[in-house]
Amino acid sequence: MQKPSIPKGTRDFTPSEMVKRNYIFDSIKKVFQSCGYAPIETPAMENLSTLLGKYGEEGDKLLFRILNSGNFLSETLPTDFADLQLNCLSLKMCEKGLRYDLTVPFARFVVQHQNEIEFPFKRYQIQPVWRADRPQKGRYREFYQCDVDVIGSNSLFNELELITIIDEVFEKLKISVTIKLNNRKILAGIADYIDAPQQIIDITVAIDKLDKIGLDNVNTELLEKGLSKDAVDKLQPIIQLSGSNTEKLSSLRLILAESEQGLKGIEEMQTLFNFLKTYPVKTEIEFDLTLARGLNYYTGTIFEVKANDVSIGSICGGGRYDDLTGIFGLKDVSGVGISFCADRIYDVMLQLNNFPADVSAATKVLIIAFGEDEQLYSLSCVKELRKNGISCELYPDISKIKKSMTYANSKNIPWVILIGSNEMTTGKLSLKNMTSGTQEQFTVNEIIEKIAE
Amino acid sequence: MQKPSIPKGTRDFTPSEMVKRNYIFDSIKKVFQSCGYAPIETPAMENLSTLLGKYGEEGDKLLFRILNSGNFLSETLPTDFADLQLNCLSLKMCEKGLRYDLTVPFARFVVQHQNEIEFPFKRYQIQPVWRADRPQKGRYREFYQCDVDVIGSNSLFNELELITIIDEVFEKLKISVTIKLNNRKILAGIADYIDAPQQIIDITVAIDKLDKIGLDNVNTELLEKGLSKDAVDKLQPIIQLSGSNTEKLSSLRLILAESEQGLKGIEEMQTLFNFLKTYPVKTEIEFDLTLARGLNYYTGTIFEVKANDVSIGSICGGGRYDDLTGIFGLKDVSGVGISFCADRIYDVMLQLNNFPADVSAATKVLIIAFGEDEQLYSLSCVKELRKNGISCELYPDISKIKKSMTYANSKNIPWVILIGSNEMTTGKLSLKNMTSGTQEQFTVNEIIEKIAE
Repeated sequence: MQKPSIPKGTRDFTPSEMVKRNYIFDSIKKVFQSCGYAPIETPAMENLSTLLGKYGEEGDKLLFRILNSGNFLSETLPTDFADLQLNCLSLKMCEKGLRYDLTVPFARFVVQHQNEIEFPFKRYQIQPVWRADRPQKGRYREFYQCDVDVIGSNSLFNELELITIIDEVFEKLKISVTIKLNNRKILAGIADYIDAPQQIIDITVAIDKLDKIGLDNVNTELLEKGLSKDAVDKLQPIIQLSGSNTEKLSSLRLILAESEQGLKGIEEMQTLFNFLKTYPVKTEIEFDLTLARGLNYYTGTIFEVKANDVSIGSICGGGRYDDLTGIFGLKDVSGVGISFCADRIYDVMLQLNNFPADVSAATKVLIIAFGEDEQLYSLSCVKELRKNGISCELYPDISKIKKSMTYANSKNIPWVILIGSNEMTTGKLSLKNMTSGTQEQFTVNEIIEKIAE
Repeated sequence: MQKPSIPKGTRDFTPSEMVKRNYIFDSIKKVFQSCGYAPIETPAMENLSTLLGKYGEEGDKLLFRILNSGNFLSETLPTDFADLQLNCLSLKMCEKGLRYDLTVPFARFVVQHQNEIEFPFKRYQIQPVWRADRPQKGRYREFYQCDVDVIGSNSLFNELELITIIDEVFEKLKISVTIKLNNRKILAGIADYIDAPQQIIDITVAIDKLDKIGLDNVNTELLEKGLSKDAVDKLQPIIQLSGSNTEKLSSLRLILAESEQGLKGIEEMQTLFNFLKTYPVKTEIEFDLTLARGLNYYTGTIFEVKANDVSIGSICGGGRYDDLTGIFGLKDVSGVGISFCADRIYDVMLQLNNFPADVSAATKVLIIAFGEDEQLYSLSCVKELRKNGISCELYPDISKIKKSMTYANSKNIPWVILIGSNEMTTGKLSLKNMTSGTQEQFTVNEIIEKIAE
C-alpha cells in the first residue's frame, strides 16, 4: 500500500504547530476586537465570474478551478478538446474556483450585503486562500490570510487606527518592527513631476523592487519601460531623499509644488503624522518614498511592516483603495485595510524564540493509575480537578509507567498524579512535578491548591 | 452589471452570525481542551486517491474535484470525451478533491505522522467540509464539522470521557439533551440471534430508520432485504425492549446468551454504566437498541445526542472504530470519537434563544466627536479606554448625530461618549447609556470605572 500523502504545497498542522499558530491568531483577533472590528467568513468556493480578471492574467492561471458536479461535459463541444482550448474548456466545465485572496470576496460580500451593513463597516477575516503557485520554501498552495478593513469612510483616523493595531499586535507578539508608510498620490505626484504621468504603474512596479534588486537595476527597468533618461535622472534625488519624516515631507512639498495630486498626498501624510503626535505609538514609523506595493487598486496611504531583527519579507501590509467595490457595481466607497502574513510571523516568532513556554501545555495534570480499581478510584479526582478549572487527563490504559511518563513529556504536561493501592488507602496521592522531578503526597484538595499557585 | 452572488449551497457569515457561531465553537473547544484534546488541521484539498472509495459509490459522486493546473488534458485521449467516460475522464483531469469529512483526513494524518505522534493521540479538529449534495433547507455544500477523537487506546474510559464532554458542552450551551448509547457488538449479537449474521449491515441500516419511518416500514425493508419472516419475528421483542438501562441489559444477557460478540457488547455497555456510577453526569443516558448509525466502520460503542426541547435530527454522534487507519496501512489501532453538528446546534440555540445577550457586543464604547478638533481631542480618550481593556471606536467621520447613533445601535454598542466644544473645555465628557437612554457627564477616569462595573 502506498504511504498516504497530501497534495504538494499543502500542509498538515500538528498540535504543537496549531497551538503556536492559534497563539498568533488569538493575539491578532484580540487587538482587532478591541478596536471594534467584527469577524466575517465567506465560502471557500466563489463563482469563477467573481474571481476571474481580478488578479491579472497571471492570477487567472493560478486559480484552482472546481469541476462541475454531474455531467461536466454538458456544455462542451468535441472540438474544444481537439483544439486544446484550455481556458475556454475549463470555463465550460468549471463554474466555481477556490478563493485566491480575501480582498475580492470581501468586496463581493460588501456589495451583496450592502443593505444589511451599517457603514463604515469594520470587519476582519481570517481564512485560508489557495493559489496554484509553484510550491517552494515559504510559499504554499494553501495558506491563511488575516485581513482587517474598514470600508465606507474617507477619514484618516482609520489609517491611524490600523497603525495602532500594527503597534499593539507586534508589541503583544514581542516582535520589534518598523512601519513603512507612503501614499499613492505622492507617487502619482512624482510621476507628474518627472513628466511621466501615464507610467505611474511602471514606476511603482519598478520602485517596489528597490530593496530586492538595487537602484541600478531599478533605473535599467525604468529605461526599458520607456522612461526618458531625463525622467530617470529627475527621479534620482527623490528616491534617495533622506532625513526625518518631517524633513522628507518638507522637501517633497517644494519638489511637488506643481502637482495637485502630489500635494494632496503630502497633506494626507502630514495629517496622519499629526494624529500620531496626539496618539503616539511605540513602533518606529518611516515615511518611505520607495514603498510602492504592487497592487493597482491602492489610491492613498500604503503600509508595510518589516521585522527589525529577522531578515524576511514584509510581515504585514495594505493600503487605502477608493473603488474596490466598483468592480461589483457599488461605486464611490472608500476603504482601507491591512493583511497580516501569519506564516511569516510564525517563522519570525520561531527564530526569535518568542512563543511563551506554556503555549503548548493544554493539559495541566495527567493521572496515572496502576490498576483497574485505581482507575475507577481516580475518576472522582478527575472530576474534582476539572470542576476547579484544571485541565486533566486520566491515562486510559494500564501500561508500563515509562510509557505513560513519555506520554506526559510529549504533551508537556507539567504535573503527574500517580495512584496505586497505597494512595487509594490513604487518600494521599503522589504528585510529581515534571519540571523539577520532585514527588510528594497530597490530598486532592491540596493538589488543587498547589496547582492553582 | 450582474448582482454578485455565491455558489448555491454555500453561505456568507455576517458578523452577527459569526459571533454566535464562535460562541458555540469556543464553548466546545474549551471543553475539549479541559480533557487534554489538542487541535490539528489538515488541508482543504486531499489527493483523490485518499478520498475515493471511502464514502461508498454515492460519496464518490459527491466529492468536489479540482481541475489540475496547467494542461489538464495532458493525460486524456480524444476517445475519453467522445465516450462520455465521466468518471475515468475526471480522474485524468483531476488529482485533487475537497475533503468530504474530517474522519478520513484524520486517519490519513495519523498514518502519515505515526512516528511523530505519541499514542493514545487525542485530537480535535474544527474545519469546513464540502459535499456536492443537492442543496436544501439545513443542508449545505460547505459546512463545518467539529470532531474529537482519541486513537490508540481500547479503554472504555475514553467512551466515558466523550460522554462527559457531551454533558459539559450542552450544559455550557444550556441545551437539555439525551445521550443515546448502543454497541455494534450487541447489534452483531442480535444478527447472530436471529440467524442472519451476514446481514448485520442490512439490519443496522434498516433499524437506523426506525425513528423516521416507523416499525412497519422497517420490517418491510428487512423482508425486502431477504430476511426470513422468522428472523423478523424474532427481532420484534428486541427492538421493542423497554425498561431501565439495567433492565434492558439484563433481558439482553438472556436473549444473547449464545452469542460471544453479543455478550462482549453487553459487557462493554455494563462497564460504561459502572463508570458512570462513579462519574455521574447530569445528562440523561438511554441505552437504545434501535440506535445503529449508518457508518460501517463502527465496531463498538455508538453515540447519538438529541435535543429534548427542539425537534431536529441528532446534534452530535459518533462511535468506536477498530480499524479506521487500516485503509492507509496501519493495522490494529482502535479509536473512538464524536462529531458535533455546529449548524444544527446553532439552529437549536436560536430557537431556544440561548445566546447570551452580550455575545454580539464586541465594542463597549463608541466615541462621537462633533468636529475635527474634538476628534483629535478624543484620541487620548480612545487610548486611555483601550489601555484599560475597554474596546472602543472613534466614529471616524463627522456626520449627523443620527447616523452615528444608528451605527452604535446596529453594532449593539452599550455606551456612547459624545464630545463637543463644551466637553473639551471642561474635560467632562457626556456618557450615554444606550440601554436606559440616560446621559451624564464624567471625566475619562470616571467613565472607565463606570463601564468596568
